Amino acid sequence: MACEYTIIREVEFSDTDMAGIMHFSNFFRFMEAAEHAFFRSLGLSIHTTDPEPLGWPRVHAGCDFRYPLRFEDSVEVRLLVREKREKSLVYSFVFRKLNEQPEREVARGTLAVACVKRDSATGRLTGVPIPKAIADKIEVAPAELLEG
Amino acid sequence: MACEYTIIREVEFSDTDMAGIMHFSNFFRFMEAAEHAFFRSLGLSIHTTDPEPLGWPRVHAGCDFRYPLRFEDSVEVRLLVREKREKSLVYSFVFRKLNEQPEREVARGTLAVACVKRDSATGRLTGVPIPKAIADKIEVAPAELLEG
Amino acid sequence: MACEYTIIREVEFSDTDMAGIMHFSNFFRFMEAAEHAFFRSLGLSIHTTDPEPLGWPRVHAGCDFRYPLRFEDSVEVRLLVREKREKSLVYSFVFRKLNEQPEREVARGTLAVACVKRDSATGRLTGVPIPKAIADKIEVAPAELLEG
Amino acid sequence: MACEYTIIREVEFSDTDMAGIMHFSNFFRFMEAAEHAFFRSLGLSIHTTDPEPLGWPRVHAGCDFRYPLRFEDSVEVRLLVREKREKSLVYSFVFRKLNEQPEREVARGTLAVACVKRDSATGRLTGVPIPKAIADKIEVAPAELLEG
Repeated sequence: MACEYTIIREVEFSDTDMAGIMHFSNFFRFMEAAEHAFFRSLGLSIHTTDPEPLGWPRVHAGCDFRYPLRFEDSVEVRLLVREKREKSLVYSFVFRKLNEQPEREVARGTLAVACVKRDSATGRLTGVPIPKAIADKIEVAPAELLEG
Repeated sequence: MACEYTIIREVEFSDTDMAGIMHFSNFFRFMEAAEHAFFRSLGLSIHTTDPEPLGWPRVHAGCDFRYPLRFEDSVEVRLLVREKREKSLVYSFVFRKLNEQPEREVARGTLAVACVKRDSATGRLTGVPIPKAIADKIEVAPAELLEG
Repeated sequence: MACEYTIIREVEFSDTDMAGIMHFSNFFRFMEAAEHAFFRSLGLSIHTTDPEPLGWPRVHAGCDFRYPLRFEDSVEVRLLVREKREKSLVYSFVFRKLNEQPEREVARGTLAVACVKRDSATGRLTGVPIPKAIADKIEVAPAELLEG
Repeated sequence: MACEYTIIREVEFSDTDMAGIMHFSNFFRFMEAAEHAFFRSLGLSIHTTDPEPLGWPRVHAGCDFRYPLRFEDSVEVRLLVREKREKSLVYSFVFRKLNEQPEREVARGTLAVACVKRDSATGRLTGVPIPKAIADKIEVAPAELLEG
């Protein structure tokens, strides 16, 4: 069972905007990348078709921005499992800029995702309980990590 | 003085992901597009260099997602000014899907933005009071609109 | 039958990069948006599932860039049908910046797309002849337009 | 002196589209990422301000697509220097999908970039000779690599 995972990303030129900083929408792409890497670290894929197609649409996404990131900055994105419910998960994310001393927290984010079944004919999404094989591998992070 | 603005967007192919729906990060791009159109509607630009370069970095961004948007959906993005402070603004956004009956609210979002001066030599951002010429054109939306 | 279509786009903040200009990858998004609008203008959708799921993956994409586009620039994207083959189409695109006088051509692009059938079980794509109902609505642009 | 560089990228969820494959515009982002990593491998940055601000706007970008890439595919992007002129460089790119046997070439691309000076007051870009400190580190790849 795991309650956290960390990835490191470089800010690319195409992530920046004319203000010279990473466009804020990319913080959400980085959170999602950490979520998917977390699943892979558990031997899972966010894109499951066996025994049936499951998806994880976002129910809520939020981010507080403290300091900007710039081109070629190296950023640690640390995922922590905040809540585990029958049909949904809530993650917290802490962004730390690694390429200056002292390292600095630049942002904190949240994703709440629902486990859904996708009807392959209609495309309709229906909330379903998280399969046991997935739920058994995920646990909520201890409070001291979440508040840290 | 204005407290709201509405744009209409079509969901493009490049906005979708392999789940067949608009990738959630694009809701944030749509909010920003509404914010910038709001400024233009007031005869302003979000990108001001006169008398000095101002920027509006995001301090917080959040979105609650209720229904997915799909390719070629038409979506109304309505901006409402929620708060006007000395150095920052908070906007609310309501997303409504227009191309089905009855029209349906699909998401609600928030952006909090700070008014900053950008040092052209160092790129450093410093919070500054919103210039009067801008602040005088913007007012907070009445409670009945914000709760509606 | 139609051989051309024109859309107008505004360059958004999220389209720009730290060089202060539209990131070049977005020219390709704009071309695709014009292609899809062209299909809609013919009463078609690029996303067809009737009588079977068809797709139009790109076989080639290219663009020559002459002048940069900047935030809030208004750009005309004119699509011209350059070639119509049994299983593929080739489009040319001309980008013109509208918000300065004289109007200026800023880029020229090309997309070659194949008509494919997507196996819903395996996801595999197979080239197929363009359905007659689609092919009958599309014709190659006259040489004077293509060279213009 | 160097004539090539290789990066490896994973296809992320946000890189995909509703066709279930990587959106073609992202091949161009991957090429640019390889170009910038190539510069870093030479101790350079694409974003130079010393002794003066230089930029490398794209003059041409092209890509031929043979096979689609999908979520979580691992792709090698190999950059080769095709041409070195006084004021511009031309790169070739070969994309190979690594996570299936035999490995398969999925796309080939080209970027032609100009060396420009950016006037910090007006934003205007002017073509300039590639600085010697940069040009001396870059050489054209041998024909057998370029044709391979």
